[in-house]
Parts: sequence; C-alpha cells; structure tokens
Amino acid sequence: MKARVTVTLKAGVLDPQGQAIEGSLKGLGFSGVASVRQGKVFDLVLDGASEEEARIAITQMCEKLLANTVIENYAVEISN
Amino acid sequence: MKARVTVTLKAGVLDPQGQAIEGSLKGLGFSGVASVRQGKVFDLVLDGASEEEARIAITQMCEKLLANTVIENYAVEISN
Repeated sequence: MKARVTVTLKAGVLDPQGQAIEGSLKGLGFSGVASVRQGKVFDLVLDGASEEEARIAITQMCEKLLANTVIENYAVEISN
Repeated sequence: MKARVTVTLKAGVLDPQGQAIEGSLKGLGFSGVASVRQGKVFDLVLDGASEEEARIAITQMCEKLLANTVIENYAVEISN
C-alpha cells in the first residue's frame, strides 16, 4: 500500500522560505510570480494493511510526527 | 493561476531524512512502515498567464531553481 502525505502551512502562517524562493524566481526574471509557499511531501510504503487501516495509521502519524498541526495542514492520498 | 510543483528524489538516491522519519515512526509503534521518502512541494500563484504559458514558465523555474534535476524529479499540476 502506497500513500502520499502532503503537509502545507496554514493560511496566514509566515513562510520565509517561500518568500526567499519567490525573490529568487523574480531575480531570475520570472516576473509573473505572485506568491510561493513551500511545503513537504512524504511518500510512504506500508506493509499489509487495508486502505481503511492505512488511512487511520497515517492520520495518527501526521498528528504525532509528520505535521505540526498548530501551523500546518496535511492531506493523505492512498493508492493501491 | 495556481500551480503545485512536487519535487521528489529519483529512485536510488539515498534519502537520510526519509530514513530518519521511518525510524521515528517505527519508534512510535508504527511497525507497518516499509519505506518513507521525503520531498518538497511548492504552491505557486502566477499573475495573468494562460495555462500553456504558465506550464512553460514553471518548467523553466523547476529546471533553473526549484529542482536539482540530477537527483530529483518534478511534477507540475496547474489549477484554474
């Protein structure tokens, strides 16, 4: 069972890394860039679990380790 | 125009950060985790471009700044 967890900053949370990338892109001549926000992605492989069990386990992983839920949102996509 | 760029390590490239997360998840009792690979996601907002122009610009951004194409793959999703 494969899963992808995408962790992004909540709206309103300052993202200095994203701002630095935005500045660099403008410096390279990409003038149409209005905003950049950076997040993280985790590609997980889980052994022998049903999709429902996997979703429950991954939600716990996000709450405990993968995301800081005070400032970050997470989304879980499960494939086969 | 919004776009999401997902940058992931190519297969075979060592991912010590992913291995550390895998170890931590196992330490927390998630024994079913077989593999973790970490990547990056960039949420971009672009001013006034058609979807085709945006795709061309974002591909150039990936090649020049957002991804290290020696060791990383990138995927671009464009929405409205």
